[in-house]
Amino acid sequence: MSENQNTLSGGVSVHEIKSTIEHHLSGLLKNCDSKTAVGMAMQESVLGQGKRIRPLMMMLIAHDLGYPGEKKTLLDLACAVEMIHSASLILDDIPCMDNADMRRGKPTIHKKYGESVAILAAIGLLTKAFAQVSAASGLNGEQKARVVGELANAVGEQGLVLGQFRDLAGVGHTQNINDITATNDLKTGVLFIAMLQVIALAASASDATHQRLSAFATDFGQLFQLLDDLSDSHFTTGKDRNKDAGKPTLVNVLGRERVCDLVYHHFHSANEHLAAVCVAGQETRQFIHAWLTLTLAGEKPAMKSA
Amino acid sequence: MSENQNTLSGGVSVHEIKSTIEHHLSGLLKNCDSKTAVGMAMQESVLGQGKRIRPLMMMLIAHDLGYPGEKKTLLDLACAVEMIHSASLILDDIPCMDNADMRRGKPTIHKKYGESVAILAAIGLLTKAFAQVSAASGLNGEQKARVVGELANAVGEQGLVLGQFRDLAGVGHTQNINDITATNDLKTGVLFIAMLQVIALAASASDATHQRLSAFATDFGQLFQLLDDLSDSHFTTGKDRNKDAGKPTLVNVLGRERVCDLVYHHFHSANEHLAAVCVAGQETRQFIHAWLTLTLAGEKPAMKSA
Repeated sequence: MSENQNTLSGGVSVHEIKSTIEHHLSGLLKNCDSKTAVGMAMQESVLGQGKRIRPLMMMLIAHDLGYPGEKKTLLDLACAVEMIHSASLILDDIPCMDNADMRRGKPTIHKKYGESVAILAAIGLLTKAFAQVSAASGLNGEQKARVVGELANAVGEQGLVLGQFRDLAGVGHTQNINDITATNDLKTGVLFIAMLQVIALAASASDATHQRLSAFATDFGQLFQLLDDLSDSHFTTGKDRNKDAGKPTLVNVLGRERVCDLVYHHFHSANEHLAAVCVAGQETRQFIHAWLTLTLAGEKPAMKSA
Repeated sequence: MSENQNTLSGGVSVHEIKSTIEHHLSGLLKNCDSKTAVGMAMQESVLGQGKRIRPLMMMLIAHDLGYPGEKKTLLDLACAVEMIHSASLILDDIPCMDNADMRRGKPTIHKKYGESVAILAAIGLLTKAFAQVSAASGLNGEQKARVVGELANAVGEQGLVLGQFRDLAGVGHTQNINDITATNDLKTGVLFIAMLQVIALAASASDATHQRLSAFATDFGQLFQLLDDLSDSHFTTGKDRNKDAGKPTLVNVLGRERVCDLVYHHFHSANEHLAAVCVAGQETRQFIHAWLTLTLAGEKPAMKSA
């Protein structure tokens, strides 16, 4: 993303927010024991290169909602979500899941540290995220408990876990569009939904805002997963390519052109939901627009890797 | 355990508490999707036979502390800990960890459902435990957040995760008694400590009680792990035997006789700590005494399996 595109109209610098997030992550992971392989694996998987799309979206949406609280609280929550995301990537890559050798242009965690360390690092990150939320400053006890509930349910048996199971079970099977869309919701959408409910909780937003953000996150999750599927065989992502060859993705079922149409459909719908609640700013919309334009143009994104 | 030993002096029936715990667990896991392998694996791993030593100890100690709150709150917390324990057993058994074929007299979860389902079921149970704590009735928000923190830290990089890593890394290496003791603390003690801090939190106990329970749990964790190591080659446990053959356990380093002495040392110390804080009852002490006597006699325990 160029410097112009990077600085949004409200003077918000995406690169600056990303740097702040990475600095905060670095501080949070500093107390991992880097003398053990598990500690090193935790640090490496989170602090390596990443788009930081989830924490970035959380920070931007908080800004657009006019969140009045401390920035540290937001960063604690955003970084907890990034740790959960990193844990899910470690597990996605292990031999009995996607069996991926490369991620973000580097050997995957299990390739470098072995499978047992990779699994333990994922558990370490997941629990660190919950510990962190439970100790987050600037939230009352009830808010912290509700944040834990949102995130735990998003990861669990009805969330990412089910998405990953459906994804693996789908390999080699024909599936209809509804099934694939439901799997995409679970693989990607549920964590987007949960993380924005977390922001709405922190901002003590109205029920209407909670609902609109949930609808936005559903669209954005679909959009994000479709772009990821498009990129599997096309863009420079730093990941193993063609990992989706046997999987029933919408790209495989509908073809690239119709998927691009779907992406635009979700983008416009997402945009409307955001416009309805983000009255204090439109940074998120600008960011998504710039990011989508670049990604669909097939350019190598400045914030590369998935 | 005979009926006489099963009913403690205060009229508390251990079998009855165990049944109540299992009934509550069953209710909590009912909403897992038993049409998916992950849901089935979650239910099977928790609802199969087990000693329920952790939730049982939580209920007994709450009784002995004179816990004045609702029983449902205790059961919610105790069952969350049992789910965390079950998750840890699933992961302990997978091929890249202990590679165990049998647990509680049945094929391990990965043997029956495959490795990816086993790992997803473990994550499902872990997050279900946190979701459950976050929604526990009878606790205020701050208590719920602190319970989440206690349990997340007990599982994480400085807790069970580190214990498991040290356990795996120790295979084939000579270790001294202090190293092995520290590993035992992490493998077993930290979750005992955390679960009793949870009870102390729920009971709004004094700082002195928190500390004494922590000291008790440290002794009890050592005692428990030593009995487990003794049983590896000796008792009828329903697990694969001699899994510790290459591991530096205290049984391998000190021999069975000195380990039995150590067990009694920890038992007496644990007993003293309990006596200092459990002024409302002595059910826990009686239970531990009966259980220890039976286990060391090499009898097949009535509540078999580890």
